[in-house]
Amino acid sequence: MADMTREKCIFCAIIADEVAHYRVASSDLLYAFLDAYPISRGHTLVVPREHFSSLETTPEMIIKEMAIFVAQYAPKITRALDADGFNIGINNGRAAGQAVDHAHWHIIPRYEGDGLKSWPNTSTNAEKLSRVAEEIRRKI
Amino acid sequence: MADMTREKCIFCAIIADEVAHYRVASSDLLYAFLDAYPISRGHTLVVPREHFSSLETTPEMIIKEMAIFVAQYAPKITRALDADGFNIGINNGRAAGQAVDHAHWHIIPRYEGDGLKSWPNTSTNAEKLSRVAEEIRRKI
Repeated sequence: MADMTREKCIFCAIIADEVAHYRVASSDLLYAFLDAYPISRGHTLVVPREHFSSLETTPEMIIKEMAIFVAQYAPKITRALDADGFNIGINNGRAAGQAVDHAHWHIIPRYEGDGLKSWPNTSTNAEKLSRVAEEIRRKI
Repeated sequence: MADMTREKCIFCAIIADEVAHYRVASSDLLYAFLDAYPISRGHTLVVPREHFSSLETTPEMIIKEMAIFVAQYAPKITRALDADGFNIGINNGRAAGQAVDHAHWHIIPRYEGDGLKSWPNTSTNAEKLSRVAEEIRRKI
């Protein structure tokens, strides 16, 4: 089936070395390069070489590979840059901030005092939590 | 080897059903429950039943299980709550916002207009990116 999105995909172009980018690491199935608009020094994107539009359409075998790759390289990148920790992030869907429709996992090295703020926790209560959990369990 | 952390671990107490919590889903190896201080409605934590302090000390087999579990349940939770997308997040280390030393992956349902802001991208240039990528590749 023709995948029109793929033909204009910036990440596919990067993997094919058709546009300038900065490689971090790679494997047979995966490719890691620096985000061109980094949230922090060393902000890296890990993508499957094959085009899948999101986490939801990525095959399980590739998801496992990505998880292991990210778990191995995130600490290595963190140590290489003398960072103090790291965040792993996946944004799925426009409402979640996904900007490129080629599945990608963020590795964001963190530095003490870097000023990046966690998203605020909301106030809630047992009754509300109970209702949400019940609603999820009923529908999944 | 005695693991003092484990004995006082709030997530181990939740898994053992020793403290109140709101279960979302579970498997032989994993347990998912609502974050008591949710960033959004349906904010869920996925943890291994066994105590590992962080992503770095979680065995590969468990990491693969977690990735598949999260990839399966995040879209289900999103649909169950009529959310519009989701973020997956892992915080590794205090500098990255890890507050509980039992490995956990966040599933954060996202709602259009929920006001959660992506972390700001920084300005950079080809020379800086090139230097960072080179430094990482040299050291990993």
